[in-house]
Amino acid sequence: MRLYGFWRSLATCRVRVALRMKGLAAEEVPVDLLRGEQFEDAYRSVNPARAVPALVVEDGRPPLFQSLAILEWLEETRPEPALLPPEPLARARVRALALIAAADTHPLHVPRVRRQLAERFGADDAAVHEWGCHFIGEGAASLEGHLARDTQTGRFCHGDAPGMADICLYSLKAGADMFGLDLAPWPTVLRIAAACHALPAFAAAHPLAQPGAPQKPA
Amino acid sequence: MRLYGFWRSLATCRVRVALRMKGLAAEEVPVDLLRGEQFEDAYRSVNPARAVPALVVEDGRPPLFQSLAILEWLEETRPEPALLPPEPLARARVRALALIAAADTHPLHVPRVRRQLAERFGADDAAVHEWGCHFIGEGAASLEGHLARDTQTGRFCHGDAPGMADICLYSLKAGADMFGLDLAPWPTVLRIAAACHALPAFAAAHPLAQPGAPQKPA
Repeated sequence: MRLYGFWRSLATCRVRVALRMKGLAAEEVPVDLLRGEQFEDAYRSVNPARAVPALVVEDGRPPLFQSLAILEWLEETRPEPALLPPEPLARARVRALALIAAADTHPLHVPRVRRQLAERFGADDAAVHEWGCHFIGEGAASLEGHLARDTQTGRFCHGDAPGMADICLYSLKAGADMFGLDLAPWPTVLRIAAACHALPAFAAAHPLAQPGAPQKPA
Repeated sequence: MRLYGFWRSLATCRVRVALRMKGLAAEEVPVDLLRGEQFEDAYRSVNPARAVPALVVEDGRPPLFQSLAILEWLEETRPEPALLPPEPLARARVRALALIAAADTHPLHVPRVRRQLAERFGADDAAVHEWGCHFIGEGAASLEGHLARDTQTGRFCHGDAPGMADICLYSLKAGADMFGLDLAPWPTVLRIAAACHALPAFAAAHPLAQPGAPQKPA
């Protein structure tokens, strides 16, 4: 398999974790989002949505795209270890927690949004940084509200084994790390992120642990 | 079942379509997002993430939340008619198309984001409107890029029966309708949205067809 990604992409981080949890390896092909390589013709033919990740799983078939769709595909084709619990209501809970991070938080601070803030409103680096911190904080607060009130929360988001929600929560924490945002106001989120980071599949997928990253994670 | 929603919420629209496709009915409880009712204590106990929709499926269990998680739950518990094709790579394609609309586009123009644009950058109504149109257009372009190049696209996003991707594409079109954005530059998106709108399950779920909406859809 070939994974088009970028060291700091949180969506790529999610796929990296899931691949490792499932015991799979993929060659990673870097697409430099900060230099705009996703807009070049060569990459447009890989993913017309001009975003990473994209996962080539079979020559001659279009690459998979969108991190959560890739995670679901991994779960359907390599069921062990499970990223989702067996019971439908529990699966809905895990998917919904995952979406808080991957759909309601992460898309609000990606490079194409930061660029629009600068171009349309003259937002400087500090203002863009505060924007990102605001929405990462809102995502953490939403996760905390759900996790802290529910007895289904365990060592991880759902019980005592890591799954799809933990992968997305961990990517939110990785985003906070890159923004220098302390998640201490949301202790359950912080606790679960630490439990994830103690696992090699997570720590090795962290943006700051990738080739090309400016520093090592704390 | 009880669906907490709002007439103009695109995420609520998605759940309305799916419920009707599966032949289910839910009593809809309005949460006025424009007045900020989602931030009141009464609603916070329903969904700590302070967003609609939330679906009460069983008394004594926390409501389901996040539209895509609700769609997956419906698919798992009421398989017919199917919202996803049977083959894993095809399922990944449909989910990824759905996520372009529901994760990469819609969250960028919800009320809480529009409010931040106004508060942080003094964006007036026109600037907020242009922001919304820009990102809806980007979402439509991403969908068009995938749909137009792939022979798996049929009358609908994947073959000739409507499914999860169509529900999300239709919600993107409903957002465009509310912003007054013409999707003509993306003809495949427009064609599939029209095919959806010809089906009662979709048309009846359109934001502008709900009680409380200011006008009827064109």
